[in-house]
Amino acid sequence: MTDIDALRAGDNRALARAITLLESTRAEDRRAAERVLQQAMPHTGGAIRVGVTGAPGVGKSTFIEAFGRHALADGRRMAVLTVDPSSSISGGSILGDKTRMETLAADARAFIRPSPAAQTLGGIARRTQEAMLLCEAAGFDLVLIETVGVGQSETMVAALTDIFVLILSPAAGDELQGMKRGIMESADIIVINKSDGDLAPRAAVTAAEVAGALALMKPRAPKWRAPVLRVSAAEKIGLEKVWQKIDAYYNLLKANGALQKKRGEQTRDWLWFEAGEQLLAELKKNSAVGDMMNRVAQQVGAGRTPAAAAARKLVATFMGAAK
Amino acid sequence: MTDIDALRAGDNRALARAITLLESTRAEDRRAAERVLQQAMPHTGGAIRVGVTGAPGVGKSTFIEAFGRHALADGRRMAVLTVDPSSSISGGSILGDKTRMETLAADARAFIRPSPAAQTLGGIARRTQEAMLLCEAAGFDLVLIETVGVGQSETMVAALTDIFVLILSPAAGDELQGMKRGIMESADIIVINKSDGDLAPRAAVTAAEVAGALALMKPRAPKWRAPVLRVSAAEKIGLEKVWQKIDAYYNLLKANGALQKKRGEQTRDWLWFEAGEQLLAELKKNSAVGDMMNRVAQQVGAGRTPAAAAARKLVATFMGAAK
Repeated sequence: MTDIDALRAGDNRALARAITLLESTRAEDRRAAERVLQQAMPHTGGAIRVGVTGAPGVGKSTFIEAFGRHALADGRRMAVLTVDPSSSISGGSILGDKTRMETLAADARAFIRPSPAAQTLGGIARRTQEAMLLCEAAGFDLVLIETVGVGQSETMVAALTDIFVLILSPAAGDELQGMKRGIMESADIIVINKSDGDLAPRAAVTAAEVAGALALMKPRAPKWRAPVLRVSAAEKIGLEKVWQKIDAYYNLLKANGALQKKRGEQTRDWLWFEAGEQLLAELKKNSAVGDMMNRVAQQVGAGRTPAAAAARKLVATFMGAAK
Repeated sequence: MTDIDALRAGDNRALARAITLLESTRAEDRRAAERVLQQAMPHTGGAIRVGVTGAPGVGKSTFIEAFGRHALADGRRMAVLTVDPSSSISGGSILGDKTRMETLAADARAFIRPSPAAQTLGGIARRTQEAMLLCEAAGFDLVLIETVGVGQSETMVAALTDIFVLILSPAAGDELQGMKRGIMESADIIVINKSDGDLAPRAAVTAAEVAGALALMKPRAPKWRAPVLRVSAAEKIGLEKVWQKIDAYYNLLKANGALQKKRGEQTRDWLWFEAGEQLLAELKKNSAVGDMMNRVAQQVGAGRTPAAAAARKLVATFMGAAK
């Protein structure tokens, strides 16, 4: 059985191998990955693509674990791709990552994959997008892309997914203080996690505060104001509501054409990014540009030319050499 | 007096105006900004460029405020550029940013500027780099670039600066668990802030732990292992040591040629980035590419072509049209 057949038949190891090919920087692996992608393409687009973000400590892993188990019990198959932009430097943590989402990882109906190491967020985004497509071809009907909600990785995740879920803790009053309006505005569903035990009253207050803040903002879509859901992943409370809201919003997006439009725009953005990366690679390979680089870098370093002007010379040389 | 003269004479408002021009997206402002940059270039390169990062809550602002006041008392002039990648979405916080670094901001020998709003981290990086050059032309002998230490913004800051300072809290034991090895490895100086009062014993333990973790890593440079300094920004304890270490490391880098080499490499990376952005802009403007985009985006959306292959067509069309 070829890899694509095995992947299509639901073999998680074949899926994992294909994603490893995608992440490889070897040209040979990359070509093999493109062949697999090419074969996978007709079978993509079928999953609900959900981005999940939250600050460190809000219990993202616990939430996804509980949510995923609920999903599996419901007969769904769920893939989780985690995007950790800080892993781009070395990929390893100092004292070792805690094993995360253990029980979910052990279930064949689920698939969990940490983000690849990559030099740039763009590089992580490219591979995550392709990995998502492979998960769809493998028949997962839900693909969660998880990231820590600080920095730009959540913007990237929003650019890849249909629905954006923001997880907050009951102590989000403090978080709201520092949290940027943008991340709240871009959330389709807000989950207040740890809404249990001693924290339950605080969670209720936080939910009211968040709903109040949202009321001052533009709704996400003509018929959708982001719901604020109180959830306890630890106690398995409220998970069903999250599902219902995801389904409801997905169906709304699908029915009014917004899903198609959104994915179409994402595809175009994606193509521009991809083409830009390819052009840059061509630029760096060009020998006339390479010769000129040595000269202009020195001029810029010596304070004789601003970088933008020097870069224009490189581009002009490249465009000239392409003639 | 022209803006560049006023800026060179130490007029912080002229500097602020010039940075505003840099951040503008209007072509006219951008051209004016390039003229100012061009005039500023011969006067750049003289500052110690220091990146400061740390997780939310470690007291970065308090540290920079206390450190800056110490620096001013010492006869130095310090500029602070803060990079907040999450502000790229909308720029505003929900409940309003707390006023930060108040007393420092009020002093004419200091200059504080928050990061510009930009669509991409690359866009923020470009403007921050240019703003740093203007600060140098304005005669600041220390430029601090501050960012929150989660995500990729610290990678960007490291790519712009000479020296990278990581701030930790006394509770960093927990942070170490989640912190990626890469960020520790890339730190030149580590500050344990809040080393005072009840937290002092814990800070001592944390400092020992961090030093232990560092001992297992490759030193930053042949003659430099990142020092771990206990500091209380609130109580103004230990700030002098930070200065001494910054000076010592800067002098070491300068003496052994590493500073020149590092800045040279940064310049080249910068030029590649800048040229790549310019090429992408050309690509997007090209009408033949625009026509083809409509077709290939549909093919990709329909699952008939992978994005990489479609992007190759766009690039080929662009290179052909350039002939």
